[in-house]
Amino acid sequence: MNSYFHFLTPSGKSSVVQGPPYHYGADYITIYFKADPEKLQYFLPHQLKVLKDGSALAYVSDFVCTVSENELEAPFIDPAQATYHEAAIGIRCTYKENPGVYYPFMWVDRDWSLVRGWSLGYSKKLADDIQMTRLHKYIPHVPYYGPGVKLSGYCARHGERLLSASLEIQRKGTSKDLSSSPSVYGLRYFPANTPGQNSVNELVEIQKGNAQLGEEIWVGEGKIELGRSTNEELERIGAIEPSYGLWYQFGFTNYGSKVLEKIS
Amino acid sequence: MNSYFHFLTPSGKSSVVQGPPYHYGADYITIYFKADPEKLQYFLPHQLKVLKDGSALAYVSDFVCTVSENELEAPFIDPAQATYHEAAIGIRCTYKENPGVYYPFMWVDRDWSLVRGWSLGYSKKLADDIQMTRLHKYIPHVPYYGPGVKLSGYCARHGERLLSASLEIQRKGTSKDLSSSPSVYGLRYFPANTPGQNSVNELVEIQKGNAQLGEEIWVGEGKIELGRSTNEELERIGAIEPSYGLWYQFGFTNYGSKVLEKIS
Amino acid sequence: MNSYFHFLTPSGKSSVVQGPPYHYGADYITIYFKADPEKLQYFLPHQLKVLKDGSALAYVSDFVCTVSENELEAPFIDPAQATYHEAAIGIRCTYKENPGVYYPFMWVDRDWSLVRGWSLGYSKKLADDIQMTRLHKYIPHVPYYGPGVKLSGYCARHGERLLSASLEIQRKGTSKDLSSSPSVYGLRYFPANTPGQNSVNELVEIQKGNAQLGEEIWVGEGKIELGRSTNEELERIGAIEPSYGLWYQFGFTNYGSKVLEKIS
Amino acid sequence: MNSYFHFLTPSGKSSVVQGPPYHYGADYITIYFKADPEKLQYFLPHQLKVLKDGSALAYVSDFVCTVSENELEAPFIDPAQATYHEAAIGIRCTYKENPGVYYPFMWVDRDWSLVRGWSLGYSKKLADDIQMTRLHKYIPHVPYYGPGVKLSGYCARHGERLLSASLEIQRKGTSKDLSSSPSVYGLRYFPANTPGQNSVNELVEIQKGNAQLGEEIWVGEGKIELGRSTNEELERIGAIEPSYGLWYQFGFTNYGSKVLEKIS
Repeated sequence: MNSYFHFLTPSGKSSVVQGPPYHYGADYITIYFKADPEKLQYFLPHQLKVLKDGSALAYVSDFVCTVSENELEAPFIDPAQATYHEAAIGIRCTYKENPGVYYPFMWVDRDWSLVRGWSLGYSKKLADDIQMTRLHKYIPHVPYYGPGVKLSGYCARHGERLLSASLEIQRKGTSKDLSSSPSVYGLRYFPANTPGQNSVNELVEIQKGNAQLGEEIWVGEGKIELGRSTNEELERIGAIEPSYGLWYQFGFTNYGSKVLEKIS
Repeated sequence: MNSYFHFLTPSGKSSVVQGPPYHYGADYITIYFKADPEKLQYFLPHQLKVLKDGSALAYVSDFVCTVSENELEAPFIDPAQATYHEAAIGIRCTYKENPGVYYPFMWVDRDWSLVRGWSLGYSKKLADDIQMTRLHKYIPHVPYYGPGVKLSGYCARHGERLLSASLEIQRKGTSKDLSSSPSVYGLRYFPANTPGQNSVNELVEIQKGNAQLGEEIWVGEGKIELGRSTNEELERIGAIEPSYGLWYQFGFTNYGSKVLEKIS
Repeated sequence: MNSYFHFLTPSGKSSVVQGPPYHYGADYITIYFKADPEKLQYFLPHQLKVLKDGSALAYVSDFVCTVSENELEAPFIDPAQATYHEAAIGIRCTYKENPGVYYPFMWVDRDWSLVRGWSLGYSKKLADDIQMTRLHKYIPHVPYYGPGVKLSGYCARHGERLLSASLEIQRKGTSKDLSSSPSVYGLRYFPANTPGQNSVNELVEIQKGNAQLGEEIWVGEGKIELGRSTNEELERIGAIEPSYGLWYQFGFTNYGSKVLEKIS
Repeated sequence: MNSYFHFLTPSGKSSVVQGPPYHYGADYITIYFKADPEKLQYFLPHQLKVLKDGSALAYVSDFVCTVSENELEAPFIDPAQATYHEAAIGIRCTYKENPGVYYPFMWVDRDWSLVRGWSLGYSKKLADDIQMTRLHKYIPHVPYYGPGVKLSGYCARHGERLLSASLEIQRKGTSKDLSSSPSVYGLRYFPANTPGQNSVNELVEIQKGNAQLGEEIWVGEGKIELGRSTNEELERIGAIEPSYGLWYQFGFTNYGSKVLEKIS
């Protein structure tokens, strides 16, 4: 069987997604915030250490276009295989002194994005509804991105609003306004449920490249609201102090994941 | 009650949509085609006459941003109220020698877009799934709009593919490549089902303005496939001869609808 | 054009829904409650008067099977045209001393249910997600409907939970536990947006018949939670005092709507 | 981290699904068919051998209620976590002379059902739309399950109809009409994408129990139609000869999966 994942067939054609590298072009509303570092540490594998200042972030994003390297024509051949939305919460941390970010919660709206993410080490679930402000250059009377413009986004699952983010743009930004993380850490995980089965549990660093930041970067005041749900535990993050927010466009590649530690 | 439509309340706040004017900013894949004029005439109110050459068009579009004039902040306050997708089939025609276009079939993916459309005179149903190729300036290895690039879109309802459109870009276009229609005709319609009820049945011309065509217009070879479904009759259009297709961005305003004739 | 509604064609085949009579078979979680009568009166057309005790109800329901009389085979031919979910809030009231119920808020998850409802006089919007507890006779370890069993349901729109209802069954009920309303009042409404257009604004009584209550009726303690949303005003209902709740199955027919008054 | 799957947290509360045993109560439209055994063998892991007569089956089903054993209250607490739809194609086969069935294609409409299935060894993807005829005891003029009644179901993904099944009931059936399989085989699979990563690839037998067939079993003439899609290869099944179909209700438990062979 030559599929990267289910459906497993000799041709591999029916696989829910093809293997990496994966290429991405996305628009983000990102809000940086601080929270109680002890509360944040709860969500991290013990090998990762939260920063002393409790730095974290949340985003809602529109992954406008994304493909596997061996399916570069997907946006044309199967548009439902090449675009999705994502919302996430990230915690800044270190692994053996190396700074990075770990995303305990990431919601998307396509199954192939789930699978792709899991195989790389991203912790994903499906949202029922991820929406964000979309502006258009040619609509009358509604201004395009710029100072004074307000943007928002949200993520809902099982009929509950989990994450709301909003941003009031104050000024044009530069790449220095992005508090980007040298490394992205994750967990590749697949469970065993019966004696005799293998499982996977690996702390990984996702191998990224081709980073290209869009020219339009907008900075302003950001807000976040987190919700409660039976199947989530966002309330454990506690009080949040947003610092600022950004709208930007970003392109990048995920090549795979380097194993840092096998967890037993 | 001060609502434009249901829910009807004194404040009008709960109305599924506010009244016109409506502003729009959208991206289109439009394919021009010809079909048997007699077959096309079947879909027109008898007051409208098909053109002799059977000119028609189909599009799949991303209504990136749209608002009612008294809700200009909707993209921020309620992003799910300000963006939707639309697919349609239009037939060129004349009303008393005045050339225009009539859309017998228009599918959208939001209830407020349905209502808004009906109140203006557009014939709309909900689709389950409308997708189109989305490209992003910063994704590695996937080219942005330009010669050689291929785009597609589709509309599905009740699990059936109703409309598939595709476009292979050959050259940059100009406003002259848009075969735009001086007038857009429609039917404002609301049924009676019991003696004593009022009904509405009006042939209208939709009042448009603020038209602004985006700078990027891409022209190429277009294709269309129409599907069959229990609740549609697209097969009555018969054989289709596509001429060419376009990708473009367009902004405009719908102010309301001028009644041409009341139909009894 | 022989369609009941859009799409308007000579055959009527493409109409989003056929005309009445409509037949229904549904499962309900209904919670009776009381609220401040003045606050409830706000939501009523002035011709309807709230009861002095502020009687009202909320339900979440699974419209398992429903058809138009001239499409009795729809559940087979087009299953997506014959099943939907509905949540609603109803206010008990009188019209010229005749007791009845009026539903200011009704959410459904199919476009044809919207249209059908509007043409009868029901105030409907689309929900994104309506869910309710479903039990099955043959699942191991999960009890079927009966004393001690807990049920719930919810309705969400634009990523916000609008209505949550829950019921803990205490005893088997009878038809006397249903606080049914002799009359159902509604508003048939279609707006004008430009001078010269007709509109419809009729206070109606929906013509019901063929009522058949299922044998299994379960009564218990009920709870309701109402949410806030940009496009709703449920908070105006104020404090709610639930009395009790029911799970039951119900079949009925809506034949059309009798006009009580034309509203100018 | 005590989650069964992502999201991985110390409490395990945020896991997309809890671990097995899983209990199920479902309604099925199942159609038995025969196809070219060589074509069917293509879809099987080589350790499994197709039957000489090319026996296979397709179903569309409503998983009305399902829970993990340590979340028996899910239908009440989180109804969206306890009900889903499933469509599948199964191929009868033997493993070392032991007869069973293997499902190369299974589509569901909830993320937690995907994950649960994969961890047991079921090959699943998300469908966009799975619908089947639902009948109700109390709807006027639409007969309940019984001779002469027609049922159907379908599964669509990325806007394409993949599987349509229909059944015209001829007679009441018994458990003997169910061509049930002693064993259910599957593949537990999780990919590696970078040197140094672990992977899982296990041929398993799913451990089933608590089987209980509903009293109402209806047998009749069945039909199947398979569709084409970019991301599927159903056309490889070739010509299909349906034998008969059934509607029935079934309850059962999946305890986990016994590893038959580790595949390298």
